[in-house]
Amino acid sequence: MPEPRTRVAVVGATGFAGALAAAIVARHPSLELAAITARADAGRRLDDLYPRHRVRMELEHFEPESIAARADAAIVAYPHGAAAPAVRALLEDGLKVVDLSADFRLDRDRYERWYQPHEAPELLADAVYGLTELHREDVRAADLVAAPGCYPTAALLALAPLRELAADAIVDAKSGVSGAGREATGTTHFVSVAENVNAYKVEGHRHRAELDRELGEAFPLTFTPHLLPIDQGLLASCYVTPTRELSAHDVREIFATAYAGEPFVELADVPPGVRDVRESNRCRIHATVEPATGRVLVFAAIDNLWKGAAGQAVQDLNLMLGLGEAEGLT
Amino acid sequence: MPEPRTRVAVVGATGFAGALAAAIVARHPSLELAAITARADAGRRLDDLYPRHRVRMELEHFEPESIAARADAAIVAYPHGAAAPAVRALLEDGLKVVDLSADFRLDRDRYERWYQPHEAPELLADAVYGLTELHREDVRAADLVAAPGCYPTAALLALAPLRELAADAIVDAKSGVSGAGREATGTTHFVSVAENVNAYKVEGHRHRAELDRELGEAFPLTFTPHLLPIDQGLLASCYVTPTRELSAHDVREIFATAYAGEPFVELADVPPGVRDVRESNRCRIHATVEPATGRVLVFAAIDNLWKGAAGQAVQDLNLMLGLGEAEGLT
Amino acid sequence: MPEPRTRVAVVGATGFAGALAAAIVARHPSLELAAITARADAGRRLDDLYPRHRVRMELEHFEPESIAARADAAIVAYPHGAAAPAVRALLEDGLKVVDLSADFRLDRDRYERWYQPHEAPELLADAVYGLTELHREDVRAADLVAAPGCYPTAALLALAPLRELAADAIVDAKSGVSGAGREATGTTHFVSVAENVNAYKVEGHRHRAELDRELGEAFPLTFTPHLLPIDQGLLASCYVTPTRELSAHDVREIFATAYAGEPFVELADVPPGVRDVRESNRCRIHATVEPATGRVLVFAAIDNLWKGAAGQAVQDLNLMLGLGEAEGLT
Amino acid sequence: MPEPRTRVAVVGATGFAGALAAAIVARHPSLELAAITARADAGRRLDDLYPRHRVRMELEHFEPESIAARADAAIVAYPHGAAAPAVRALLEDGLKVVDLSADFRLDRDRYERWYQPHEAPELLADAVYGLTELHREDVRAADLVAAPGCYPTAALLALAPLRELAADAIVDAKSGVSGAGREATGTTHFVSVAENVNAYKVEGHRHRAELDRELGEAFPLTFTPHLLPIDQGLLASCYVTPTRELSAHDVREIFATAYAGEPFVELADVPPGVRDVRESNRCRIHATVEPATGRVLVFAAIDNLWKGAAGQAVQDLNLMLGLGEAEGLT
Repeated sequence: MPEPRTRVAVVGATGFAGALAAAIVARHPSLELAAITARADAGRRLDDLYPRHRVRMELEHFEPESIAARADAAIVAYPHGAAAPAVRALLEDGLKVVDLSADFRLDRDRYERWYQPHEAPELLADAVYGLTELHREDVRAADLVAAPGCYPTAALLALAPLRELAADAIVDAKSGVSGAGREATGTTHFVSVAENVNAYKVEGHRHRAELDRELGEAFPLTFTPHLLPIDQGLLASCYVTPTRELSAHDVREIFATAYAGEPFVELADVPPGVRDVRESNRCRIHATVEPATGRVLVFAAIDNLWKGAAGQAVQDLNLMLGLGEAEGLT
Repeated sequence: MPEPRTRVAVVGATGFAGALAAAIVARHPSLELAAITARADAGRRLDDLYPRHRVRMELEHFEPESIAARADAAIVAYPHGAAAPAVRALLEDGLKVVDLSADFRLDRDRYERWYQPHEAPELLADAVYGLTELHREDVRAADLVAAPGCYPTAALLALAPLRELAADAIVDAKSGVSGAGREATGTTHFVSVAENVNAYKVEGHRHRAELDRELGEAFPLTFTPHLLPIDQGLLASCYVTPTRELSAHDVREIFATAYAGEPFVELADVPPGVRDVRESNRCRIHATVEPATGRVLVFAAIDNLWKGAAGQAVQDLNLMLGLGEAEGLT
Repeated sequence: MPEPRTRVAVVGATGFAGALAAAIVARHPSLELAAITARADAGRRLDDLYPRHRVRMELEHFEPESIAARADAAIVAYPHGAAAPAVRALLEDGLKVVDLSADFRLDRDRYERWYQPHEAPELLADAVYGLTELHREDVRAADLVAAPGCYPTAALLALAPLRELAADAIVDAKSGVSGAGREATGTTHFVSVAENVNAYKVEGHRHRAELDRELGEAFPLTFTPHLLPIDQGLLASCYVTPTRELSAHDVREIFATAYAGEPFVELADVPPGVRDVRESNRCRIHATVEPATGRVLVFAAIDNLWKGAAGQAVQDLNLMLGLGEAEGLT
Repeated sequence: MPEPRTRVAVVGATGFAGALAAAIVARHPSLELAAITARADAGRRLDDLYPRHRVRMELEHFEPESIAARADAAIVAYPHGAAAPAVRALLEDGLKVVDLSADFRLDRDRYERWYQPHEAPELLADAVYGLTELHREDVRAADLVAAPGCYPTAALLALAPLRELAADAIVDAKSGVSGAGREATGTTHFVSVAENVNAYKVEGHRHRAELDRELGEAFPLTFTPHLLPIDQGLLASCYVTPTRELSAHDVREIFATAYAGEPFVELADVPPGVRDVRESNRCRIHATVEPATGRVLVFAAIDNLWKGAAGQAVQDLNLMLGLGEAEGLT
């Protein structure tokens, strides 16, 4: 007799990340998609909104008790601020939760500096930052995991192995438009984006708070996001001045050691393109040294909706539930 | 009686930059397009290859004497190596020449290190690097001008005002595919580029030699090009550690002073997009300071085929011929 | 002494077509941009919204008297319904008007069937349908010209020469996203459009009313619009069953005769791409016969914002003002 | 004990379709990827060429005996002409073969009219046209299946249910660039394709021969392909004049009946976009009637590399091997 599948609800399933999370759960061999919720679109079927995901399930209004009666775990894909109360309700009902918003990624101080007053500060102490490659054991033991932002995912995987060796670092990050969410705005209008590229929020993007927290502000860090005319994909080009001379070989060794055995980190001999990881949960990294300056260059490519959001959430959930980390993700 | 127009030949008019140069010359109020040459496509009309440029002129084989009989000046748009002999022949016949290749952009040593043995080293001493904003008077007096590469154009306009204030600099540059030229390769195939972005030649792109020459190698400079899924447009995102503390206001002043009165440099209050300068000869620049680090951020956007190639060549030619610098370019 | 320029206001200058109309007028040798208006964005400068158009003029609220005091003519770029009262006010103040909306393109019956109750039906009798190639003399004499829709412009230029020879016709039309306007919607979101193509409004798009009016409903006409991942450009692929056998040569002759001397219709030997006419006011047409069926195939490409909107409006205005038809448009 | 997997070779695995076929086979629960071959790239690993497919297998030269010793079936993805001899060799060695080229899709007469002298005409009698939805039982029994072209796949699925009801039909087909193959040409250069759309081969594209064969030339059929700036995806917009009046309801019923139970045909209430089927083996169809003319409109969207090539080949192979038709394809 096959083991019963763990029942998972996706709360807020109509955004890009939530919808993909629902699709991944629906196809997952050990999970069962128990419910999907929406605010404006309750009553519609998810495959009407996203034909390609083929999730033939009706969206319902979010009622925590109703969800709790039918699910063992939840992925919450609400905007920041709205997520915290939903997460609290689900935790109180005994579910394990992966939250895709910023609400549980930061300590309270950083959160309130970059976002707004926190709606559920009492939960912060037990929330685990769900970058599996850095916090695997904590994720395994957690009831509440905050899935990292898309930019921090790529930047941290690029920088973490160099944390003790960096005198400073610059992250020039480039994201596809799906990272800006499903809301139609001047910024996401096709005519604004096509045949264009520009930096934005250059005087401070909120995702830097995650970098600061995880890297400990041990060295000056510049972080500049750019918007690209692609739908999915994110590339972090990182420039690190090392505290001591490193050869390209040294750098390769550092990364090979840091990520040995990682199921979703792939080291490449050439700079990765985001196409290489499209629709996959992998982070593809090339690390080398620029001969002219001795500066360490690290390029990390992810699919912002997979490893940068929904895929990573399922990776977290797999660990929290004692499943294989890569189950349902390959 | 109107003044007779200066007759200009475009040698190598079938590449993207050469074709655009021909089109700009053809519409220029004080220039006359005297001849256009091609190697493989001689005998065809340019508007067959580029309907949108509407240059209804037949391409001919390059014969210097024949060109010299009909033209007073030439824009040469040959690949490096092939350009030098053509340039020499035209100069000997008394034409003023703007060369779009790398052949006359560098001192011999740098050229031969990054490219190949030089075909006409005796001409290097008198060749002027045609970044007008930095070398206007020299361009005015020159018979031979080397139009800068597309990456150096944007990067130098971003960095030159900070030359004496930089402890180090990183140039993360992003180019559209037309910068890779008209040759069909795996790299320029639509399927390689669409929905993709990647760094390339990260251990050394030849355009860095121009940066080194112009900036004097006074500080460590990292230069990394990226390929984007756009056809025209180039953004240089520059990160400069200043030698002394600078405020955003200081930086704005530095740029305002440096580029006061420049017809083709436009300072912007927000990071420029390459769409803002599409099909124009302008370089649009935003310079500021990142509060978290005090690092100076400069973003410079150009159309790689205009200010990065053909437009700049005509800007040079205007000066060499005593015309208004912006004539035919607005 | 140069002749004084005609002063032109652009009413509703913040949409894609209105902004381009302002830019064309601003650069026009015989026109002067007198005023630009906006509803939400009054007080802002147009070059803040559209840096590339470089129109450094402040947007103002629309007050007909104030406009009339400063302008001799106006281009109105309001949505349908909103346009009619504005047009009436301007006409009453003695301005010549080109309207870009649907309000004056149709007889009242067709208008009210496809749109809504008409706001100024008394003006319909004197309004001229501004497809210059078909109604040049009427445009010249008109005080009010309705610039055609983008789809009808391409489709009518493709079909008009065959009007008497068609047993039926199918127009499979493909438009870039700028045709859907500047409003941010689910439809215009980059992620909806990129890597996609779909037909829409297949059971009846309002632009068919213009086709019916101009072609007289003399034969069954199918019209199906499609949305493409490009910003500017529109291709009408037309399939006409002829009432008598026609050779490819016959068809070429028919088009050559129909469009002899037309400044903005360009006949091509191969199917046009929309790139061929990007940022131009031309309509590029290829007409031939499919050997297997004898069916006539006509492909007409325009830039939907130029020949399909703002460029055509200026072409109309040139005629209404007694200027050269192509002035300011090449 | 699990059943041994059927060993499959992919001959010509470096093109877009061949590489995807290798990837699908490699992940297929009942198939084992036994070998992959290449001409120019033998010795390289497939994941060097296509990182995202993650097929870590070395490409080898094609030697039929060697392949036959290790494989039970083969998918051949050679260009037409080159395929036939390879197919013959593999059949002689006892393998079941799905061929992706045109070599076995047509009767000899049609083949030689549109292509070239046939290299293996003796095999034509037993080759089955692998459009499973039309020829399922024949495919099941076949040793050699010719996978249909991408255009015919979409067009035939759109037209087949109307075969007896059509007085004429027009297929306006729109394809992404991957349909043009991996060869770098002027046509596939990013700068040729981006922000463009054009018809091509309007006087006769070879894929029409497949339409003629399958539809029996019972009515006049116009077929016009267009190239779009997308990488994967193909939309066939079909316009059918019915021989008797049909309502939209009639048409929906016809399609519902024709495709009841089909695992890879999906009927939609609205016109499909190619994004809806991206990276899937489905054909998504919307069929309706245009009220103004009574004409039947059918829109069929596929991913040209999946249902239009590699996916369909595996669908065929599944049937030939007695596996579930959808195995490895969902």
